[in-house]
Amino acid sequence: MSVVDGHGADATHPPGSELERFTAVLRRLINQGVHTSASPQLLDGAAAALEVVAGQLEPVTPPWAPSVPAFYEGMKPEDFFPFSPMIGRYNALAPPVTVEVVDGAVHGTGNLDAAYEGPPGCVHGGVIAALFDELLGVANISAGVGAMTGTLTITYRSPTPLQSDLTFYAKVLGVEGRKVRTMGTIHAGDRLCAEADGIFILVDHSRFLTHTETRGGGRDS
Amino acid sequence: MSVVDGHGADATHPPGSELERFTAVLRRLINQGVHTSASPQLLDGAAAALEVVAGQLEPVTPPWAPSVPAFYEGMKPEDFFPFSPMIGRYNALAPPVTVEVVDGAVHGTGNLDAAYEGPPGCVHGGVIAALFDELLGVANISAGVGAMTGTLTITYRSPTPLQSDLTFYAKVLGVEGRKVRTMGTIHAGDRLCAEADGIFILVDHSRFLTHTETRGGGRDS
Repeated sequence: MSVVDGHGADATHPPGSELERFTAVLRRLINQGVHTSASPQLLDGAAAALEVVAGQLEPVTPPWAPSVPAFYEGMKPEDFFPFSPMIGRYNALAPPVTVEVVDGAVHGTGNLDAAYEGPPGCVHGGVIAALFDELLGVANISAGVGAMTGTLTITYRSPTPLQSDLTFYAKVLGVEGRKVRTMGTIHAGDRLCAEADGIFILVDHSRFLTHTETRGGGRDS
Repeated sequence: MSVVDGHGADATHPPGSELERFTAVLRRLINQGVHTSASPQLLDGAAAALEVVAGQLEPVTPPWAPSVPAFYEGMKPEDFFPFSPMIGRYNALAPPVTVEVVDGAVHGTGNLDAAYEGPPGCVHGGVIAALFDELLGVANISAGVGAMTGTLTITYRSPTPLQSDLTFYAKVLGVEGRKVRTMGTIHAGDRLCAEADGIFILVDHSRFLTHTETRGGGRDS
């Protein structure tokens, strides 16, 4: 399988379990960083060790260039955006959220750690908004109407707890002309934490290609 | 200065330049991870080296517990949320965004790297939504009306370019009863990329304290 998504390893080295291991330990370090009591000496040593690793990766990491997502028939939703900052398996910014599509609707689960905190004990409202944008987008692609976000409205109903099992839901409500209307919810158990209402704009795929080539990216073959 | 914000090093080791160095190299590794062409062998070695560091931090990183943000008179806006996933200097999830308050309005600048990509060459719409939630929140606190997000509506006007200098703006439009109305914009040069309209709900600070203590957190002294 060829994974591009505007990122990613080249054809010689497709992303695999090693990149997954690298991403997993980065997530662990990110979460440690926001609540460690390590001494300045230990932190300095840790930073120095990480700088050595970054220095090793530097010569084998080409300058970033955008490329076009490779969607194909029968693709699993978790493969839509493997490098996404929201749900990407290979992006350490993304919290561990898993998604599947059942009867045309997106069902997701996740448990967000310390680094995603906003109000005390709760997931940051911005993280919630970001997850909705992504999950509504996955619902659109799953329904064959992948589109750009036009307007996204998030309504926060109750606190979204940190370090708790959350469930996500998203589905397309309808398509009218170039507009796709999509909704989503986040629950903690039976409690509704937040809901989203999005209007997405269908964009011709050729515009994506033109845009990407203008920005210096290439098509994966 | 005591920095709490629901996270952070203990009083013996307040966050400083060492944690900033640690966070900076984590950001570098996160961005490398999404577009490196490193071989599986190199990635495995890199992951192993990072696991050693995570193992060293483990015994000096207490279990996460929520605590209450310590706002004080004359505080700079970048100190409101030092561990925030959106603009936190000490949270590697946060892109490098700097903010200041001029005449009661929040002005920010930032340049987002590969890990924040959504559409080819563009900042992820979810990241944009997340930044707005945070920056509108900073505007509220700066105006003395810090509040919880009720409804946040983002309108995407044009693509927000990656690896380009962006400017952020947010200000409170008015307060009516317990509702705070706040707006924001993101520009790339003179071009409007996205705008936000938020309704925030004023919450009694004592509810924060109660909530935090219920969740097992403590007040910083």
